[in-house]
Amino acid sequence: MLETPTPQITAGILGASGYTGLELVRLLHHHPHVTVHSLAADSNAGKTLGELYPAMLPHPEIAELRLCSVDAIDAGALDVLFAALPHGASAAILADLMDAHPSLRIIDFSADFRLTDPDQYAAWYGIDHPATDKLAEAVYGLAEFAGGLLPNARLIANPGCFPTGATLPVIPLLRAGLIDPTQIIIDAKTGVSGAGRAGKPQFLLADLHEDFYPYGIDNLHRHRPEIEQVLKQIDPRVEGVYFAPHLLPIPRGILSTIHLRLADSATLSEVHACLIEAYADSACVQVLPLGKTPTLAAVRGTNCCAIGIGGDQTKYPNKSVASSRIAIYSAIDNLVKGASGQAVQNMNLMFGLPESTA
Amino acid sequence: MLETPTPQITAGILGASGYTGLELVRLLHHHPHVTVHSLAADSNAGKTLGELYPAMLPHPEIAELRLCSVDAIDAGALDVLFAALPHGASAAILADLMDAHPSLRIIDFSADFRLTDPDQYAAWYGIDHPATDKLAEAVYGLAEFAGGLLPNARLIANPGCFPTGATLPVIPLLRAGLIDPTQIIIDAKTGVSGAGRAGKPQFLLADLHEDFYPYGIDNLHRHRPEIEQVLKQIDPRVEGVYFAPHLLPIPRGILSTIHLRLADSATLSEVHACLIEAYADSACVQVLPLGKTPTLAAVRGTNCCAIGIGGDQTKYPNKSVASSRIAIYSAIDNLVKGASGQAVQNMNLMFGLPESTA
Amino acid sequence: MLETPTPQITAGILGASGYTGLELVRLLHHHPHVTVHSLAADSNAGKTLGELYPAMLPHPEIAELRLCSVDAIDAGALDVLFAALPHGASAAILADLMDAHPSLRIIDFSADFRLTDPDQYAAWYGIDHPATDKLAEAVYGLAEFAGGLLPNARLIANPGCFPTGATLPVIPLLRAGLIDPTQIIIDAKTGVSGAGRAGKPQFLLADLHEDFYPYGIDNLHRHRPEIEQVLKQIDPRVEGVYFAPHLLPIPRGILSTIHLRLADSATLSEVHACLIEAYADSACVQVLPLGKTPTLAAVRGTNCCAIGIGGDQTKYPNKSVASSRIAIYSAIDNLVKGASGQAVQNMNLMFGLPESTA
Amino acid sequence: MLETPTPQITAGILGASGYTGLELVRLLHHHPHVTVHSLAADSNAGKTLGELYPAMLPHPEIAELRLCSVDAIDAGALDVLFAALPHGASAAILADLMDAHPSLRIIDFSADFRLTDPDQYAAWYGIDHPATDKLAEAVYGLAEFAGGLLPNARLIANPGCFPTGATLPVIPLLRAGLIDPTQIIIDAKTGVSGAGRAGKPQFLLADLHEDFYPYGIDNLHRHRPEIEQVLKQIDPRVEGVYFAPHLLPIPRGILSTIHLRLADSATLSEVHACLIEAYADSACVQVLPLGKTPTLAAVRGTNCCAIGIGGDQTKYPNKSVASSRIAIYSAIDNLVKGASGQAVQNMNLMFGLPESTA
Repeated sequence: MLETPTPQITAGILGASGYTGLELVRLLHHHPHVTVHSLAADSNAGKTLGELYPAMLPHPEIAELRLCSVDAIDAGALDVLFAALPHGASAAILADLMDAHPSLRIIDFSADFRLTDPDQYAAWYGIDHPATDKLAEAVYGLAEFAGGLLPNARLIANPGCFPTGATLPVIPLLRAGLIDPTQIIIDAKTGVSGAGRAGKPQFLLADLHEDFYPYGIDNLHRHRPEIEQVLKQIDPRVEGVYFAPHLLPIPRGILSTIHLRLADSATLSEVHACLIEAYADSACVQVLPLGKTPTLAAVRGTNCCAIGIGGDQTKYPNKSVASSRIAIYSAIDNLVKGASGQAVQNMNLMFGLPESTA
Repeated sequence: MLETPTPQITAGILGASGYTGLELVRLLHHHPHVTVHSLAADSNAGKTLGELYPAMLPHPEIAELRLCSVDAIDAGALDVLFAALPHGASAAILADLMDAHPSLRIIDFSADFRLTDPDQYAAWYGIDHPATDKLAEAVYGLAEFAGGLLPNARLIANPGCFPTGATLPVIPLLRAGLIDPTQIIIDAKTGVSGAGRAGKPQFLLADLHEDFYPYGIDNLHRHRPEIEQVLKQIDPRVEGVYFAPHLLPIPRGILSTIHLRLADSATLSEVHACLIEAYADSACVQVLPLGKTPTLAAVRGTNCCAIGIGGDQTKYPNKSVASSRIAIYSAIDNLVKGASGQAVQNMNLMFGLPESTA
Repeated sequence: MLETPTPQITAGILGASGYTGLELVRLLHHHPHVTVHSLAADSNAGKTLGELYPAMLPHPEIAELRLCSVDAIDAGALDVLFAALPHGASAAILADLMDAHPSLRIIDFSADFRLTDPDQYAAWYGIDHPATDKLAEAVYGLAEFAGGLLPNARLIANPGCFPTGATLPVIPLLRAGLIDPTQIIIDAKTGVSGAGRAGKPQFLLADLHEDFYPYGIDNLHRHRPEIEQVLKQIDPRVEGVYFAPHLLPIPRGILSTIHLRLADSATLSEVHACLIEAYADSACVQVLPLGKTPTLAAVRGTNCCAIGIGGDQTKYPNKSVASSRIAIYSAIDNLVKGASGQAVQNMNLMFGLPESTA
Repeated sequence: MLETPTPQITAGILGASGYTGLELVRLLHHHPHVTVHSLAADSNAGKTLGELYPAMLPHPEIAELRLCSVDAIDAGALDVLFAALPHGASAAILADLMDAHPSLRIIDFSADFRLTDPDQYAAWYGIDHPATDKLAEAVYGLAEFAGGLLPNARLIANPGCFPTGATLPVIPLLRAGLIDPTQIIIDAKTGVSGAGRAGKPQFLLADLHEDFYPYGIDNLHRHRPEIEQVLKQIDPRVEGVYFAPHLLPIPRGILSTIHLRLADSATLSEVHACLIEAYADSACVQVLPLGKTPTLAAVRGTNCCAIGIGGDQTKYPNKSVASSRIAIYSAIDNLVKGASGQAVQNMNLMFGLPESTA
């Protein structure tokens, strides 16, 4: 009996010169069923990746890839297009490409197709949505929960890095009714690659090497409404979340400490059992034994989201009363599971491949 | 008119070979009114600081100081003794010295005299308190609030590093009734010098350089009852706190993110005004303008505790409803304001000097 | 036509709990033709890798591997044994195993079988060589130059990390007579994983994070005679080398700056052409274009040695005269090409596999 | 008897917004005899230091200093002007100020007045020197050797960071005839603040955190002719130096490893004795005991240059023959002794104060 050969997928990337783009190129380069056809990046058109990233020089298969301009990309030759463009610009360009190439499948890293409500988009991004007619078609690509929709999706909104780490541990607990939906605090700490490669002084090693600090302290980070949208779809009683991001002096990783209150009568053990069961068959989410903590080193360079559960289980009468509070910890690599790795995971599911291929 | 000359203070240090001890030696060396008489450290008795810390070699005034054994210290020659010994050992040794030298004044870095209730001590430290008869005499040296008691104190319990950063911003808010006393979450991030210099593999640069992770995830860190004791003395309605520490891949600093719920009708502006007023005359606490964030770089090497206030102030109808939650951020250097700097501040107040001398 | 299936290689590791051992386990785990049969490490016998390295916890396929004692290893079941034991102990244990299991093939990470002269060994290591009868059989496994001997080797001495980076660029130049063999200075900078995981205070992040310094400043580092032996075999006129190592505040990588004097009439272009040609077919050595510099980031996690060439090529009359000095730069990952990666490369060549498999 | 009160020095700074400028502001702020009158920085005119450096926010005495434009500086009100402007611009602006304000004393951080030969300047900087008439008046401010000229100097060229660390250890050895003047190799490693705060991607923490690499590999770094000029003034037989700089992934510090050949019959002990004697009375240069190594941590934040001496002293017959090569190591903080600290040291000597005041 003959096996049907796996078809080769031809891929293009818009906005390939940032950290996310480089990570995507590397992942696709090792993917057995993908051919990288073309890379585009307006600000660096004409340059090779080796010119932009000297660290690639000893790896000519990556270093010699040359960027074209976004206009010059031949979308007709592609099966799938990854777009890592600025918000606003992304939706406008992608809408045109979707009209011109109906069979082209798109995975968008920007925020443009994540919020389903164009009024929310306008409120948080300060511009009218450039392609409201395409919004209904977009599938929010939190791969562990979007599975069924992906094989037929034409447009995937790849989730933000913070929402990925924040929602994966909370969704099963909300579904199971184990936590108070009105008291969700996300205290997140991110490596600095999340800030991009634009070269602002505050992200220089000389400024940041021994520092650590919060930002977005007004609780108005744009990933907050994205998190809220995901969680409200699970439980409409979620009023909102408190989202407190911090900047770590390391290149990669997001550790989210999610402070929660247990629902009446729920226990820490039930919380752990719920998450173990929810991700028992998951290729990319690993729930740790009770008492074990996820670390950023553990997920660096991987598509893994590692989850740990913390809380006071003691009933020792001589210590303070056990609280009904718990903390859930999740660790991801912001450039992999928080961006390019999840995009490849989504592509795999889109094209019927095992989700962890690559 | 003649000024009374400031008397010179003769100081000794027990447990001088750790990070805290070295920092203390450096601070006292620059103090205009202190003479460092003797340094002791059992495990390194006979060695110089330069042998233990090669980085001191170009500074012979520090490098050539030699450690004696703890037994060999001549307490009778001292005005003040700083003790940075392990808990348990500390109380036993200090009680003997207090009996033998009634006029000796002591500043203890260990936890032994921080908890006022010996049952709590036994529960959290696993041993019976070795010197219960001295507990009543100990003054908890959170310098900003212990001021009146210090000039007459014979024994100061220098606060833990986490309790210092966690309680300074909360005490004025509890006093003013601006926050819900039953909902206090402290999400703290500390530099690794807090773990001491014992050389465990997990604190090696090779292990930790690109990592970040939580620890004490069972909410049973020993600084929790210390924080609770301080806050309950301000407001007995404080039931307990949730304390979630994390380890930063940098040498120094503690950034505490304190998640709070506003009391009914309280506003972010009132919270800010309350803290500004509370610390208006403080030499060592700096409350930042609303919207500004403290950073660890800002307090490195200083005795400053910098405080910032975060929360959603917007009333924009097109963004999510403003929550009643806020986050207070405090930054300290764990070896200075969190240990040796506060000890010197306490010594200054003890001896009638301006608190920021040195 | 039927292909001969590649046989599966059964491997064991002695001394598997250090950084090198963990890296080897990871490499072998991904190797398509290797089964890891057993891991031994006396000091940690009975523990799992996950207990030793919490960062492995989300990867149960590694984390759950359990170490046995060195005595308990079943050498009879193995095709190949990797040994990462302390010098002295290594030769003694391996000699016994070689006698008991004549068909066992061994790759030794220790220094015991690197120096061919037992008097040199005694001089530099301070003990008599424990297995002089096995010395003649040992092949020095600098893979790029040992190739022909490896398929029949029973005992491979895996090169030291510094000698690997220092000799790969120099060997072709010595052979071609392009450099003065009496003037070789190696100014090397290594990441701190090279110091092992023993937990000495000077390698703690709190001590090292913002530091950099030389060590072995007496030119008596034990890798010096190893480098000299390799180079003297190429050109007996090599009198000795000056070897100046430094410690970098990062986990991984060795950057060797090799200061050389050009032979009369030799040019920088000839030097470059010589190295390009020498490594034209190499899977693991990459010579960069003239003017480009290797970086540690470029080789991190790879088995690549990247080489760059520096020197003053200008003939501008208004700048200082071009010197006859040049500097060659090589970059390797000390745990991969400098240890475990080269060991796997050697194993591949030993068993007739393509050298870069894994 | 009445003491003559030390006069207060009124200072201004041009180019105050870079790392060097900020360090200078901090040093002058603590200087007991200096009043900082005005700060200028064209690109950031109108901003406060706190806006540029959020880490200054808890220190209002620095944070609230406001920058004016370079044109707006009131040079007539100043005793001394520090200039940290780009080369070319610096000489042009300073020449005008010198003409307009004959009594104004100037310390220039730029390279414009360092090279005495305008042809050399043109060759290395690519422009004609903008103020050749002022060159003869400039004193090269390597403080340890310029001492006698400084009290009467009107214009000091503050040395480059690399030349400071490279020449301090070599000058006494050249003078004493202990080294071969034709074989001087400087393998220098610098923290990244030396690259300025312009925000280039390669200096971002995300790019650099785990990297290390050489640059200027063509031996054409502009500090090379400066080093050569200093050393040729000591010994005209110095033909040139080989200067190989590298970039460290830390904010501060320069460690220079200076590879030298001993003159015939000279010994390592003589080298050590020569340096000990040369700097016996120096406030800012510390020669370590033989066998001890300087570290960057040891000099961080200080105006100290720490020097160590390395070489093979063994006469053990069973080790390789001792070479005639040695390595001298010097460590400085590039922003202090390599820039602002040395500038203040020069100012102190200019105005008759003890050189280490501040």
